[in-house]
Amino acid sequence: MSDISPVEGFEAYPTRPGFIRHNGGFFLHCERPVIGARITEEHLNPLRIAHGGFLATLADTSFGAVLRRQYDLPVAPVTVNLNIDYLGAVREGDWVEVYVTVHKFGRTVINASCELKVGDRLALRAHGNFMVWTGEIPAVK
Amino acid sequence: MSDISPVEGFEAYPTRPGFIRHNGGFFLHCERPVIGARITEEHLNPLRIAHGGFLATLADTSFGAVLRRQYDLPVAPVTVNLNIDYLGAVREGDWVEVYVTVHKFGRTVINASCELKVGDRLALRAHGNFMVWTGEIPAVK
Amino acid sequence: MSDISPVEGFEAYPTRPGFIRHNGGFFLHCERPVIGARITEEHLNPLRIAHGGFLATLADTSFGAVLRRQYDLPVAPVTVNLNIDYLGAVREGDWVEVYVTVHKFGRTVINASCELKVGDRLALRAHGNFMVWTGEIPAVK
Amino acid sequence: MSDISPVEGFEAYPTRPGFIRHNGGFFLHCERPVIGARITEEHLNPLRIAHGGFLATLADTSFGAVLRRQYDLPVAPVTVNLNIDYLGAVREGDWVEVYVTVHKFGRTVINASCELKVGDRLALRAHGNFMVWTGEIPAVK
Repeated sequence: MSDISPVEGFEAYPTRPGFIRHNGGFFLHCERPVIGARITEEHLNPLRIAHGGFLATLADTSFGAVLRRQYDLPVAPVTVNLNIDYLGAVREGDWVEVYVTVHKFGRTVINASCELKVGDRLALRAHGNFMVWTGEIPAVK
Repeated sequence: MSDISPVEGFEAYPTRPGFIRHNGGFFLHCERPVIGARITEEHLNPLRIAHGGFLATLADTSFGAVLRRQYDLPVAPVTVNLNIDYLGAVREGDWVEVYVTVHKFGRTVINASCELKVGDRLALRAHGNFMVWTGEIPAVK
Repeated sequence: MSDISPVEGFEAYPTRPGFIRHNGGFFLHCERPVIGARITEEHLNPLRIAHGGFLATLADTSFGAVLRRQYDLPVAPVTVNLNIDYLGAVREGDWVEVYVTVHKFGRTVINASCELKVGDRLALRAHGNFMVWTGEIPAVK
Repeated sequence: MSDISPVEGFEAYPTRPGFIRHNGGFFLHCERPVIGARITEEHLNPLRIAHGGFLATLADTSFGAVLRRQYDLPVAPVTVNLNIDYLGAVREGDWVEVYVTVHKFGRTVINASCELKVGDRLALRAHGNFMVWTGEIPAVK
């Protein structure tokens, strides 16, 4: 499936069986706080553009992946609140990149925002509040 | 797959090929503004609870499906802004129901909120602003 | 100032010197989780309708006042996140009522929403996440 | 009142009688998209920190003032949706600055975010969607 290959500098973000793997997986930039994904037919809505739910998934996972690596956490933090502004369409075949910025890593709440771009074009902005997971982590089946 | 059968009063929400069909599809209540879905392994995150992105997808699609039926629209309105508060975990096998309330169907903006419940337990609240789609609608392939 | 008198069933919400008192104060319904206010010239924006910041203040204070009374807290909880959808104009002389609903009073986060109405007309919806204040409470000067 | 004097590079943002003037007014940077304000006792909540409603007012007005100047609009755009994350306390005497970034000035919706800082410390992040006002503009009384 050549159309889901990443661009240079990215590598596959490891996932357990579940929602992300079922939807094609994402790519994490080796150094920068950026997640990439290639849009396939399985991500589309009836207007033949990327489904808002898929883009929300990409934003949410980007926050988790970046926070996890940046703060050396065993699992992604729990999302308390996620707010998404949809600013433009994303189409099949597009390579999208999500740029994450962490604004505050507080004692109780983590605050971060991201921009989802296709090339230079801004297609989505999201921000959210998160909490470090302090419960048990299930073993991989 | 008996575990994605709906409960009584719901019927499969018709979908075109794409993100929703790829993720198991949803069920629309025959009369009330309620969408249902059965959580399967393909919806889970690494903590083995429903992925926040899947629940966002369910919320977003619920707004679209209810608005479309209630206002007799050819396609779901475009999501301008979606805000999600995650209030509790959803587990594999759970039958979840999303209750949609439309607060304003204005000249430019539609405002609505929803509650996602497992039985009586509230697991998520979302609200958003939407606009009626006035562009072209792609033919089904 | 007869134009800031409340309607029956409401009484002045006690305030310390500060922002709320400086802006005319609010009224709390004696039994129901409802806050009222009379719009005066000092609440208006250049379009001669209530300023979005005043309505945000009213929503935020309503959450605090209702949560404080309902859960017997010494001070209003701290606002983590406040989201406001503006749905209609509010005019000078209007008596507005804010109806608060608490969705979850969790171990870490409180989740609540409200509707601001002029008569039966919905003018604003807000929701937010809050945390119980555990720090010191300043003595009244 | 020396304590509401601006810092260099800012000038008083002209206001009509109403909510902003009643609460001390704001300052607009002469060149950059930045609004400043000095916190006085009239902006405080019972914890003796700036009231969340005042900070929401400051954020909302900052969006309006910057958009109005940057796009040469006769009045500030109408706020459709305002989302505020409170990240730190602001105290009496603090000089706060709000940095506005416009992400999209679309045909129907304007999307922007801002950061409110005390010196280098981030105290609030907000973002919103706005629409250009196309109705009548009241004459100044």
